[in-house]
Amino acid sequence: MPGKSTDKLGQRMTLRMVSVATVTEWIDVTTRRLPGEPVPLGDAAGRVLAEDCIAAASIPETDRAALDGFAVAAEDSVGTSAYNPLAITAATVAAGDAMPAWADAVVPLDHAELDEGGRLVLVEAVAPGAYVEQQGAVAIAGVRLVAARTLLRGSHLALMALAGIDRAAAVRRPSVAMLMLEPPASQYLRDSNGPMIRATITRDGGSVTVSRSIVRDRAAVAAAIDAAEADLVLIIGGTGPGVEDHATAALAEVGTLAIRGVTLRPGETAGFGHTAGGVPVALLPGMPGACLWSYEMLAGRAVRRLAGRDPQLPFRQGRLTLAAKIVSSIGITEICPIKLGTAPDTAEPLPSFDEIGLMAATGGDGFVVVPEASEGFPSGATVPVYLYESLS
Amino acid sequence: MPGKSTDKLGQRMTLRMVSVATVTEWIDVTTRRLPGEPVPLGDAAGRVLAEDCIAAASIPETDRAALDGFAVAAEDSVGTSAYNPLAITAATVAAGDAMPAWADAVVPLDHAELDEGGRLVLVEAVAPGAYVEQQGAVAIAGVRLVAARTLLRGSHLALMALAGIDRAAAVRRPSVAMLMLEPPASQYLRDSNGPMIRATITRDGGSVTVSRSIVRDRAAVAAAIDAAEADLVLIIGGTGPGVEDHATAALAEVGTLAIRGVTLRPGETAGFGHTAGGVPVALLPGMPGACLWSYEMLAGRAVRRLAGRDPQLPFRQGRLTLAAKIVSSIGITEICPIKLGTAPDTAEPLPSFDEIGLMAATGGDGFVVVPEASEGFPSGATVPVYLYESLS
Repeated sequence: MPGKSTDKLGQRMTLRMVSVATVTEWIDVTTRRLPGEPVPLGDAAGRVLAEDCIAAASIPETDRAALDGFAVAAEDSVGTSAYNPLAITAATVAAGDAMPAWADAVVPLDHAELDEGGRLVLVEAVAPGAYVEQQGAVAIAGVRLVAARTLLRGSHLALMALAGIDRAAAVRRPSVAMLMLEPPASQYLRDSNGPMIRATITRDGGSVTVSRSIVRDRAAVAAAIDAAEADLVLIIGGTGPGVEDHATAALAEVGTLAIRGVTLRPGETAGFGHTAGGVPVALLPGMPGACLWSYEMLAGRAVRRLAGRDPQLPFRQGRLTLAAKIVSSIGITEICPIKLGTAPDTAEPLPSFDEIGLMAATGGDGFVVVPEASEGFPSGATVPVYLYESLS
Repeated sequence: MPGKSTDKLGQRMTLRMVSVATVTEWIDVTTRRLPGEPVPLGDAAGRVLAEDCIAAASIPETDRAALDGFAVAAEDSVGTSAYNPLAITAATVAAGDAMPAWADAVVPLDHAELDEGGRLVLVEAVAPGAYVEQQGAVAIAGVRLVAARTLLRGSHLALMALAGIDRAAAVRRPSVAMLMLEPPASQYLRDSNGPMIRATITRDGGSVTVSRSIVRDRAAVAAAIDAAEADLVLIIGGTGPGVEDHATAALAEVGTLAIRGVTLRPGETAGFGHTAGGVPVALLPGMPGACLWSYEMLAGRAVRRLAGRDPQLPFRQGRLTLAAKIVSSIGITEICPIKLGTAPDTAEPLPSFDEIGLMAATGGDGFVVVPEASEGFPSGATVPVYLYESLS
């Protein structure tokens, strides 16, 4: 279903639609992981480590007590028994304390008691090294504590803190400029795309640094593109063939329009290119379902790549058996919403985005991506499914 | 391995260890989902909806054009053909525009053209309703747009925005007071638990509203417990049987100590109770591995319940075949770190937390929870595994 549009000379410009695979390739050559920046550990959860984190010193730096008790020299306990208890030199230690130089074992607090002279009365011998965490047991100086490209969790932060590191070298958060064309005055549409796309950008590790509403005027859109300073520019709305759809022409005027039209449903009128300064630009349709899916499938990949995340769709994958058929057009990659069936491991197709708009995404449990070359799937087929829930 | 401690009268108090199942039950009767509060849509992603969100009006509120084109009355086109083209009344519309009252179909922009008189020349008849999104197609007034207990994603926010809703009724974020006992002066331990537990609380939907370091003095700890205002108090460190371990005694003094010692490894010295004001309190061991796992398995469940999240461990579950045996003690629920094996669907056990501390959590891909009644699993067994990666 190729469309047309008025270009800057008033002539009609035909959509040359390209496949999702072609756009994916374009995104992958256009975007790469941003460099690292130092981030205090307290803010580093959810960030991606830019380079290997190496232990400067061993952890622990000295032998230490593994639990609360009494530090002893194991050799002093040789020969002790219930019939021949020995009282030996001991020092009270808490878990984590450095061991005294003369001690090499710990007797747990409730396994023995001190006599009136402050010596420890033992009824069995102690093994050397018992309840002692050896120097370097957790990590030896020079060892890799956390690998580059790790998505940092709390336990990584704790390990880095233990190693005396107070800042993580984290991939810089991609900054995204979100330029939203005002809906034509006649439209009922409220700003639903703004909060939606902002939330998905944040989920993907990006940060909306510019968020502007632009009047539907080609010069205004062109000026906004020219002024945008970010790692990625998203223009939302105005991608269609209508006379007020200035996004595509404005980008062609002040930058480079590389892709116009994608065989993706919803999302056919999405486009891609660069500003004059070389910043990648994604043009997302203004209709909410099309906006969502052109982001998830295409623009979001750019955000995830810039952020050093896994570029794939950030949803849990599974295989489910269809309780009814899914029909799709050949030549179009189609997003088909599903909900989990009542029988285990089954999925029921929902009405499409064209029919029920965003309800298809919000009422469902996930979706099937029907590839371009497929006409869909028969009832009973077991198909790959993306599920929303695992995101929590 | 029961331990002992000095209670407030200077006598020894024996650990009465309870099972993870018992603590889970205690948490479930002690904590419940917090009430809702209005949250602007722009801040509502990742929050849990407290009550059903109902459409006040239909979406769309009127019939509207589904794409850019010409609004027409379908009956005007009856009888048109390539041999007998008709020129009919038409109005230019953009996708999302309200349909004129007299029109009931849209002809796509590139399917027909206007003649010099501004009438649309058609070579085939138009079906009534073509490319028109009917009033109420997305949602009818009174219908449930988003169900209570949904974890809000971008698309939910967009649907609510379309319905004219600007605030979501979201479960209040549980506030957590984090009171950390200073390590004894002799210890090498740096504050690794603070950033770790803060990050996991945030992940679970909670918010650290108080974060204090407390000197190792029983009166100071007791005063801090008494002063804590939050939905949950976490005391980190000082849970062991050592003379400087004041957390347990301090809670018993100013509040209620309900549970002291859990058959969980790492995490045996964890405890639970209430402040005098009835706020639940979790006592987490100060050793980092024990702190992490007593949070994940026990205290985190309280945070997730208060936040309205799924109380289960927030990790993806799978089943993998063990490339080597896992040995565990009967009577203890043990967390055994694993990494993914080289063969598909296999897991290799890693050295335990006792042996390599947090490296066991950060170097691995996930973990196995060996139940209390189990001695472990033989090599070749297929076992349930929790995997970290799906959190991204």
